Amino acid sequence: LPCVTVRVFSLNCWGIHYLTKHCHERFTMIGEMLCKEEHDIVLLQEVWSEKDYLSLKKKLACSHPHSHYFKSGVIGSGLAIFSKHRIHDTFIYRYSLNGYPYMTHHGDWFGGKAVGMAILNIGSLIANVYVTHLHAEYCREKDSYLPHRVVQAWELQQFVRNTSVGADVVILGGDLNMHPQDLGSRLLRSYTGLRDSYLETAQFDGCENGMTLIADNLFINKKDLVPFEKGIRIDYVLFKGSSKTNVYCDSMSTTKGSVPGHPFPYSDHEALTVELRMESHTPPEKVAELVNTVTEARTEVKVGLHCAERMRYTATRTGVMGLALLFLELAIAAVPWLALGAEQPFPRTSFYLLAALCFAILVTTSLLYIFYTMELKSLQEAEDEMRLALGSLQERLRGFPLAQAHNCSPEAQEPIAFEPEE
Amino acid sequence: LPCVTVRVFSLNCWGIHYLTKHCHERFTMIGEMLCKEEHDIVLLQEVWSEKDYLSLKKKLACSHPHSHYFKSGVIGSGLAIFSKHRIHDTFIYRYSLNGYPYMTHHGDWFGGKAVGMAILNIGSLIANVYVTHLHAEYCREKDSYLPHRVVQAWELQQFVRNTSVGADVVILGGDLNMHPQDLGSRLLRSYTGLRDSYLETAQFDGCENGMTLIADNLFINKKDLVPFEKGIRIDYVLFKGSSKTNVYCDSMSTTKGSVPGHPFPYSDHEALTVELRMESHTPPEKVAELVNTVTEARTEVKVGLHCAERMRYTATRTGVMGLALLFLELAIAAVPWLALGAEQPFPRTSFYLLAALCFAILVTTSLLYIFYTMELKSLQEAEDEMRLALGSLQERLRGFPLAQAHNCSPEAQEPIAFEPEE
Repeated sequence: LPCVTVRVFSLNCWGIHYLTKHCHERFTMIGEMLCKEEHDIVLLQEVWSEKDYLSLKKKLACSHPHSHYFKSGVIGSGLAIFSKHRIHDTFIYRYSLNGYPYMTHHGDWFGGKAVGMAILNIGSLIANVYVTHLHAEYCREKDSYLPHRVVQAWELQQFVRNTSVGADVVILGGDLNMHPQDLGSRLLRSYTGLRDSYLETAQFDGCENGMTLIADNLFINKKDLVPFEKGIRIDYVLFKGSSKTNVYCDSMSTTKGSVPGHPFPYSDHEALTVELRMESHTPPEKVAELVNTVTEARTEVKVGLHCAERMRYTATRTGVMGLALLFLELAIAAVPWLALGAEQPFPRTSFYLLAALCFAILVTTSLLYIFYTMELKSLQEAEDEMRLALGSLQERLRGFPLAQAHNCSPEAQEPIAFEPEE
Repeated sequence: LPCVTVRVFSLNCWGIHYLTKHCHERFTMIGEMLCKEEHDIVLLQEVWSEKDYLSLKKKLACSHPHSHYFKSGVIGSGLAIFSKHRIHDTFIYRYSLNGYPYMTHHGDWFGGKAVGMAILNIGSLIANVYVTHLHAEYCREKDSYLPHRVVQAWELQQFVRNTSVGADVVILGGDLNMHPQDLGSRLLRSYTGLRDSYLETAQFDGCENGMTLIADNLFINKKDLVPFEKGIRIDYVLFKGSSKTNVYCDSMSTTKGSVPGHPFPYSDHEALTVELRMESHTPPEKVAELVNTVTEARTEVKVGLHCAERMRYTATRTGVMGLALLFLELAIAAVPWLALGAEQPFPRTSFYLLAALCFAILVTTSLLYIFYTMELKSLQEAEDEMRLALGSLQERLRGFPLAQAHNCSPEAQEPIAFEPEE
């Protein structure tokens, strides 16, 4: 029986420019490490800036020719996947609850937290890979977000369970923001049957108790960890097989704070690397002809994209004009006020009315800007999914064989070369 | 080989109280008809008021002991399912795009359009049943919502395809707001492999060309149908089998405008009734123990529900106070204004400032009210799904057999009696 090995990497990148420390340098470090390590599947969270994703994509073009960035919400989901193996399908589920928009200092609401799914073919196996990031826990004693996080865990298990029936292997990685014995973790594991790499692994090398937020990390404020002085385990790689496939975790490792040869760690979270071995049979395959329909749909979505971009531009322009008008009014009013005693040229009522008008324009255009940004994100997400699906369909039409994976049988220990596409 | 027949009903109920004609009477008619007809699966759209759902639920308690109302968005999704067969799992996917909030006269945005899924056991078969309602088409020539509807069709096919892998039979019913040859329809059918009952049925009795929005319907304004004078087909029941099950459509019928013995039709849409026959083998079954975890999760969600209700109540109270203050101010200002010539008691600046404050309170509390309503909807949805899942789990624990279905083999033509639960 042939067996296949995949190495899975997961990291919360803490990628908020200007707010997190050494963001740019850390992404450079992460890119170099990923390029060198050549994991089969890389699951990243908190890649908030699309620019960082694009620069990673460029850097990993050879080692990881396939990738997807999941777009959602006002800022984005921050989720990204890089893969050595062909991604055949992607799908995003946005959690219905995710904190409150007015808790701006917590910021979770604006992130549009979600779970992203990618279906890969690893050799002859169908792998459903999920990457997610749940709402943060800011205060363990009085956690007002607990119901939201439980609903997220519930929706996550619903999504994984209902979308993974046809998969030979299921892999879920990400920052769950829950301890292993927290309600949400138990709900997720027990309902889906997903197993925890840390508990299953044959070999482990990393932080004590598999912790991923540790006191030894330079970026961690030790006070925030109390009462868990040494750290907590909130990042996971979970997996399961199927009736046709057995999956084993051969080894697992975590980073331990600082990175040898570098002045600081990759992130405030530790990175996970997991090696999974899969034993399987060969499932049958089907081919369908949809290329034209999907192409047409993609064109339609592009039309919508252009339209939304134009609308957002108009809103921006109107907003800028409102702002300019407001400044102009204030300037006209300020001149006689500075030259003390001079008569106000404005009737007071008109002054207030005009100011109110400018303010209303500003508020409306800001809301419209946010709305169009959300619309653009969703349109782009669909366009990306369609492009990817099209590539996969066209390849199938051309009769290409599915991308091959490492084969760990003794005769073929060498990884097979991959041709990057597009 | 045993075979099983199910009758599926689908109707867009046009259930907007005060805005649609004879809403209350029509729901009474619909309830009576459903109770008499005893379809296996009833898929309703535009049941915007939860009260209508609850009164239907009460009326159909004997004929359809299992039901689910899908909650989402500000108003709700309007989607409901009633079933003779045990519902084992439900899941909702909210479309990421659904029109614009400021197009209030179109109103789609506030509805939180979605696709609802319910997993039923019909005899020994697993049936994935979907009910959905896509964004309306207000102007076919210049359809500014087309990209949104295409994205909805895309997300619908993604959801159906990815969640139905384990199903023996897939049934999708609803108002797609698309003609059979429209891009979205083709995308949906060709990607999922779903087949159109109207095109597949052995027998058909109903409107010409299977139309579901017809000129002969009392509630239809004929001008709105131009250039399709006779009507259009935009409501569907789609289905497919699996590698283990073949599905055939034995008969299909639609209403034809007015209902015999009643003064007006059930809705502005026509209702569909489809009879599907399924031939199958018996799949294996698994049992899991999660009752405690799910119960705990449900408690947590309930805590969140109470909290959100309290917050919404606080927002309402603050809003009412803001409104009262505004009226008070206006009243105080109006008195001297009515008694002409009298001096204004208010300094003008304070007047404007106070009015602005009241206005700000009103806007903020209104936004908060909307937000908490959305939060409540999502929490209630999760709570409902959990309650349902719990019921199913507990039954499995007690070792009950799965609900049995009609068996159409010649020996057992009689429907088996159903015990209503809860």
